Amino acid sequence: MTLSHPQPFALAIHGGAGTIKRSALTPLLTEGYHAGLRRALAAGHEVLADGGSALDAVTAAVMALEDEPLFNAGRGAVFTAEGTQEMDAAIMDGRDRSAGAVAGLFGPRNPILAARAVMEHSEHVLLIGEGALDLCRRQGLPMEDAPYFFTQPRWDALQAELERRRSGAPEDNSDGGADQRRHGTVGAVARDRDGNLAAATSTGGMTAKAKGRVGDSPVIGAGTFADNITCAVSATGHGEHFIRRCAAHEIDARMRWAGQTLDRAAGDVVAELGVIGGSGGLIAIDRDGRVALPFNCSGMYRGAIGADGLPMTAIHREEYRMALGSEDQSFQTPS
Amino acid sequence: MTLSHPQPFALAIHGGAGTIKRSALTPLLTEGYHAGLRRALAAGHEVLADGGSALDAVTAAVMALEDEPLFNAGRGAVFTAEGTQEMDAAIMDGRDRSAGAVAGLFGPRNPILAARAVMEHSEHVLLIGEGALDLCRRQGLPMEDAPYFFTQPRWDALQAELERRRSGAPEDNSDGGADQRRHGTVGAVARDRDGNLAAATSTGGMTAKAKGRVGDSPVIGAGTFADNITCAVSATGHGEHFIRRCAAHEIDARMRWAGQTLDRAAGDVVAELGVIGGSGGLIAIDRDGRVALPFNCSGMYRGAIGADGLPMTAIHREEYRMALGSEDQSFQTPS
Repeated sequence: MTLSHPQPFALAIHGGAGTIKRSALTPLLTEGYHAGLRRALAAGHEVLADGGSALDAVTAAVMALEDEPLFNAGRGAVFTAEGTQEMDAAIMDGRDRSAGAVAGLFGPRNPILAARAVMEHSEHVLLIGEGALDLCRRQGLPMEDAPYFFTQPRWDALQAELERRRSGAPEDNSDGGADQRRHGTVGAVARDRDGNLAAATSTGGMTAKAKGRVGDSPVIGAGTFADNITCAVSATGHGEHFIRRCAAHEIDARMRWAGQTLDRAAGDVVAELGVIGGSGGLIAIDRDGRVALPFNCSGMYRGAIGADGLPMTAIHREEYRMALGSEDQSFQTPS
Repeated sequence: MTLSHPQPFALAIHGGAGTIKRSALTPLLTEGYHAGLRRALAAGHEVLADGGSALDAVTAAVMALEDEPLFNAGRGAVFTAEGTQEMDAAIMDGRDRSAGAVAGLFGPRNPILAARAVMEHSEHVLLIGEGALDLCRRQGLPMEDAPYFFTQPRWDALQAELERRRSGAPEDNSDGGADQRRHGTVGAVARDRDGNLAAATSTGGMTAKAKGRVGDSPVIGAGTFADNITCAVSATGHGEHFIRRCAAHEIDARMRWAGQTLDRAAGDVVAELGVIGGSGGLIAIDRDGRVALPFNCSGMYRGAIGADGLPMTAIHREEYRMALGSEDQSFQTPS
């Protein structure tokens, strides 16, 4: 797959962005991330190759990322300052812009299914807290308790952040700590054989976030957006900036009203976010199946797969790994 | 004030839109709405005339609308299906796009002050539920109990809607019942002497809404938006559609990328919303102080005031009332 060429169907995913320190990534951990991304690509590709919808493909890919504890969504979500977990998710269908989103949720095994339930089984777009949970129970979504979602590394990260706050030490960003704390999100965008687009995003939010803090993921037009006419987008980054810039919808606007390509619009929006302190990135796909994966920090866990079924995954810049082990030299990161 | 002309400073407000049946509006009630709108205009105008900021003006105007029980925000908010009240609000500063929003909140006398506290006293944009309430308490915002917010007409409206649901009767929209149930929101947009824009929106949501349902009001880019380069917008209507269309930010996009006037962009977006079932309206102001107040239903409680200090208020189409009692024949509703 060459990302800048049209594809009959294609899928792109991300598992968060930030200052990803190479030295902190052991070979084993690095392989774990690549394997997790490949599983998600395979899950979405299977749907698309079978003639399934973009909506089902992004759902399947995000579920796989939620189930993987390495990524900050579903199992392995980060902890709030109070030691609880609050998850947000959104999904949007480019056919008619129908959308569903949840925020401040704990319980459903796959928060993306909660967002989809809002879209398909309520007259609403955004449901929060207990109200969202009620819908999930009525729809019979699989629920899990705290032990399922708990992971030791996330818990340790919370303790370290709380200890830093107690000590009054400044946020040390030399190892990407502050960025990493903010950037955990997973997402998927897809184009199916029928030319339909869809986007899905899911997150545990920021480590040690204030209770009730909601980032850009469940905000339609900020962290998640899809319209068949232009593009599907899923973002990851310093959510507050992405909300203020209406990041995902801004890409739609530049394609629609200024005639920009996906590559140009997505790249510029991410670059501009970087200038104002909004570090992060996003994945985007256009109506012809072209993919853009721009980010303005040192790394973004990401991957893409097209009709040829060869998954490409990457963490840092200019370092793509293909399933067959060869480097795709023709590939250029679009950012 | 002629709304389509530039103004050194100006303010526009709304108190909700919908199918406002003339026969349901007694002369006394009609005068009550106009008086409530005039009080809000006066509160905001006083700030602007004194050289205050657009941000302070929209805050003052929305507080006045929240304090008036006739409007569905703050005191007089509607009830959820469970008989509780959940309020949402957002505010945005066009100078730097800083923004604050709250959702699912009960307690603060003026929810717009809660949104402003999020903007000014947290690193976040959107806080929900208990987390938002914690911030309000820490900031010492005035809090109220249920009796303050209770109004008999809103309670009766809930009972009528619940009875309709129990009986299985279809939603009767002949008297605007369904629309009115969805459309209660208040908002303000302003341009100050320094050319800065701001927007604020506050709502009790929909009568008999599901617990946890969040509409477009607190969604930056949907129900609330401000950027000095283009416009400030506050919307009211069938919130789900406004979220899917990113209504407020879409107006910014058409002005920015397609070179449209405020009047054209705002009018078209509202008309397009009407076509897809998104009944409602919005108020908008551009960098030169021009105002647009389009709506696609039979009425919108609205008003505007410019540097001359003469408030204009209206409920239905082509029916404007000025403080001095004369009709401003030169005025044309922009929708």
